[in-house]
Amino acid sequence: MLAPTDRAIRLRLAEELAEVEARFSAELLSDLPCVNTLVAHVERYRGKMLRPMLVLASGMASSPAPGDSLALTDAHRVVATVVEMVHMATLVHDDILDDADVRRSGSTVNKLHGNETAVMLGDYLISHAYHLCTSLPSPLPGRQIADATNTVCEGELLQLANRENWDLDEATYFEIIRRKTASLCGACCRLGALLSGASPEIVEGLYTCGEKLGVAVQIVDDVLDLAGDPKTVGKSLGRDLEKGKLTLPTIHLLRSVGPQTRARLMAGLGHTPADARADINADIRPTDPALLDEIHRLLGQHGSLDYALTLARRVIAEAKEALAPLPPSPARDLLLEMADAVITRKF
Amino acid sequence: MLAPTDRAIRLRLAEELAEVEARFSAELLSDLPCVNTLVAHVERYRGKMLRPMLVLASGMASSPAPGDSLALTDAHRVVATVVEMVHMATLVHDDILDDADVRRSGSTVNKLHGNETAVMLGDYLISHAYHLCTSLPSPLPGRQIADATNTVCEGELLQLANRENWDLDEATYFEIIRRKTASLCGACCRLGALLSGASPEIVEGLYTCGEKLGVAVQIVDDVLDLAGDPKTVGKSLGRDLEKGKLTLPTIHLLRSVGPQTRARLMAGLGHTPADARADINADIRPTDPALLDEIHRLLGQHGSLDYALTLARRVIAEAKEALAPLPPSPARDLLLEMADAVITRKF
Repeated sequence: MLAPTDRAIRLRLAEELAEVEARFSAELLSDLPCVNTLVAHVERYRGKMLRPMLVLASGMASSPAPGDSLALTDAHRVVATVVEMVHMATLVHDDILDDADVRRSGSTVNKLHGNETAVMLGDYLISHAYHLCTSLPSPLPGRQIADATNTVCEGELLQLANRENWDLDEATYFEIIRRKTASLCGACCRLGALLSGASPEIVEGLYTCGEKLGVAVQIVDDVLDLAGDPKTVGKSLGRDLEKGKLTLPTIHLLRSVGPQTRARLMAGLGHTPADARADINADIRPTDPALLDEIHRLLGQHGSLDYALTLARRVIAEAKEALAPLPPSPARDLLLEMADAVITRKF
Repeated sequence: MLAPTDRAIRLRLAEELAEVEARFSAELLSDLPCVNTLVAHVERYRGKMLRPMLVLASGMASSPAPGDSLALTDAHRVVATVVEMVHMATLVHDDILDDADVRRSGSTVNKLHGNETAVMLGDYLISHAYHLCTSLPSPLPGRQIADATNTVCEGELLQLANRENWDLDEATYFEIIRRKTASLCGACCRLGALLSGASPEIVEGLYTCGEKLGVAVQIVDDVLDLAGDPKTVGKSLGRDLEKGKLTLPTIHLLRSVGPQTRARLMAGLGHTPADARADINADIRPTDPALLDEIHRLLGQHGSLDYALTLARRVIAEAKEALAPLPPSPARDLLLEMADAVITRKF
């Protein structure tokens, strides 16, 4: 049973998220029906709204006035809407990168309307995200969000440059996910705090919390791509190996097996010499089902999925520790709970 | 022989464009070599730098102090760099939409590195464009640029929604190109004027000039796609019909031929009933060379290319008339000359 403060903050958060949804739709409304149809389709992708929640919960948790822990400014709502829009754009463009057919148990934009439309719809979302930023009196949120999206794109490009690199090491993997996923989550928490006028120590703590939470989100995503239940996850799975992307579990596996098995797996996955990699115009590679079965068996046998999840749990513990400078509050509890939920989610 | 003022303004413009190139590279520099390699490739796409020139020339032409007609602020240089970056992003993403292999007589990013990398590289350019905007003290330029890019994306989506619509009318064609090309050119001129502190009348006149110039640029582009010399144009040609896009000359042609020829052409081009259009996941359609030859012959016979170029000339005349509120100056002459050059260009 929830304490009254817990109930109050949950109600408040639900109201704020409804406001974010309303602003999202209002910003994207076009005079062209063909555009509105596409936007309505994308709105069906809406999930847990993790990123807006990070902005709002960080804002509430870092209010410098004790007892005022539910205070948010209009700028918090604008930024929460912007980060949801940026995230939605990355989903639409990611589905092109992953050749994905299914998201949230429905068809992707690229599957329904072609890659061309998905490229432009993602651009439309990005453009509106920045447009919405410029409605704020200060350029600071826009700058921090653009900083984050610069880094997100670098992460994606680094990942693409390492496509079919079956020697990818853990350090590069973490560099990729720090940029492509963690930087935006960090920016969400930092902006929430900055817009509440929090102290530099709290701003820094919240950035670290968000960044680490983002790292864990991506590790769990990568585990689910290999071992999730397709019905529960509701999106195309198994794309990482098919698209030549090593992730934490498969990096662990390839360094855990003997040299003969490693050579056989790499040959099966389609090893390309490093100097030929730049020229790959990679279409989807139909991976042999027998090979995938063997990889699944080996992932279990060598504890590779557990290895990844253990690392994710450690990162989440660090994310929670980073909240130490914050005074106790229902909003801080909410952030701690959101951190735990990253590990337990099945979708 | 050029008058000394003409020489002065040309020198000044060349210096300013060199500064724009330097800022372009500085903004996009990454700590990741794989990103820098891609950016270096895109820099080879650089053409006439029409959009930065519109910002700079409009800024110089609309300075309210007579005799100070070469005065520009730092904000002009930032905005000129931003619009070049936005334009470059649209080229990279357009090449995915058009399945183009060649641009500026070199391979496209999608051809060399795959669509995935081209999607992300375009996003990287867009993100940095807005990032650069936030270095300005006022949110106004960023807002106007985001307004324009919202409209550009709408134009592209409207065009995609009309793919394989062989009944496309001229009004919809003009609506598409007004949004996808003219809106950004209009914003370039307007921002140049606003940043020079020009009067509302001059700001409005310059917007109209830029918008009309953009309309003409697109008409000429569409004519060159049908009838350009591939060696001179330096990019993939004939893509419009292959991708199911009607443009001004082909719209004119289809309404000029008799019903039997029209039915035959539409069947050859792959007429799809309107209610099936939404589901097209269009790959490139290899159009029959004999059909293309016939279309070229008919375009000449029915004067369809001349029809389009005559309209472009009329729009350019209107663009020049819109400059009437500006006091005479070398910068105004430069804008007039740029307008004329839109019609005479062969690439």
